[in-house]
Amino acid sequence: MAKFVIPRKAVYRLSLYYRVLERLQQNSIETVSSDALARATGVKPTQLRKDLTYFGQFGTRGLGYKVESLLSQLGSVLRTTRFQPVILVGAGNLGSALLRYDGFAKEGFEIVAAFDIRPDASKAGRTKVPVLPTNEIKRFVPENGVKLAILAVPGMVAQEVTNELVEAGIQAILNFSPLILQVPDHVVVNNVDLAIELENLSYFIA
Amino acid sequence: MAKFVIPRKAVYRLSLYYRVLERLQQNSIETVSSDALARATGVKPTQLRKDLTYFGQFGTRGLGYKVESLLSQLGSVLRTTRFQPVILVGAGNLGSALLRYDGFAKEGFEIVAAFDIRPDASKAGRTKVPVLPTNEIKRFVPENGVKLAILAVPGMVAQEVTNELVEAGIQAILNFSPLILQVPDHVVVNNVDLAIELENLSYFIA
Repeated sequence: MAKFVIPRKAVYRLSLYYRVLERLQQNSIETVSSDALARATGVKPTQLRKDLTYFGQFGTRGLGYKVESLLSQLGSVLRTTRFQPVILVGAGNLGSALLRYDGFAKEGFEIVAAFDIRPDASKAGRTKVPVLPTNEIKRFVPENGVKLAILAVPGMVAQEVTNELVEAGIQAILNFSPLILQVPDHVVVNNVDLAIELENLSYFIA
Repeated sequence: MAKFVIPRKAVYRLSLYYRVLERLQQNSIETVSSDALARATGVKPTQLRKDLTYFGQFGTRGLGYKVESLLSQLGSVLRTTRFQPVILVGAGNLGSALLRYDGFAKEGFEIVAAFDIRPDASKAGRTKVPVLPTNEIKRFVPENGVKLAILAVPGMVAQEVTNELVEAGIQAILNFSPLILQVPDHVVVNNVDLAIELENLSYFIA
């Protein structure tokens, strides 16, 4: 359980470093300075150096980090996170859009099933993912060992559906509904509110 | 320019408070304690109380905050952020999905046009938003006073397209591409990487 020593936000940054290092390796670049890696990931250099000390990686003054070695160390931390089956709940406009988005599969996350209160009326018809009625969640999740769910239901029902997900054994939720979910301590939630992102940006427009 | 005193992350939280307060008002609830508002928004109570001091709002011990008054104060800060025209660049899988997502319009953001290098081949055909060739950005953006762009192009071309957006006058970018964009100081970027969100969540699955 040593992995829990790394704080949650640091793990997010490790994902960013990993992606940039993958690109560097594809371009046969062997070393990278902390400043360059920080710039490419949008992280402060001091923060980056601090994050990488979790791996005993202090870089070499004047030479920087070895791309391959750092990649393999980050990979050993993040590797376990890939190839997780995922379910999606709420196959409306946004949910169906997410079903068609190929970026999840590229990173090793397969959406194995979608759930909707009205599977027949859902807009996910033309995807290959089966759309099941919501009341099948409690059977499907334990049977298939699913731990990860994407929630794209309206705010009004989001907490109710979350309770069902948690009861079925879901441990992590990517929440697109505009509601802050109440969950037990062993469940993690990341919120993506696209409208708030726009609102936040536009606040800073001169 | 007094609004720039409020730090960026605090503005994000103000949007969260605003949404919860709207719901409370709809339910005719007149006061709310800082603890309840904190819980409903997933923010630490100490952080919430600190954020609200920007408005000279300290609450009343034992009574909490007046919903209507707090809502109107937050609204006066956030109001300017609404009803912004937005363009979307990259009408592929994700971009077309975002065009169909009605959550932006609900919050006052209208996507006025989409751009794609191959508008004819885009999957946005059945939406009401016009899809124009990417080389029209430099004309469209200044003509329509657009400051805000959603970027959903592949990582390979994301920086190039960003440079064109900045040159045309875009000041804020909601970036869905898996690249950290390099922009001048007057441009703000918020990143949404859905695969990293899943990766981050699954790291914390027991």
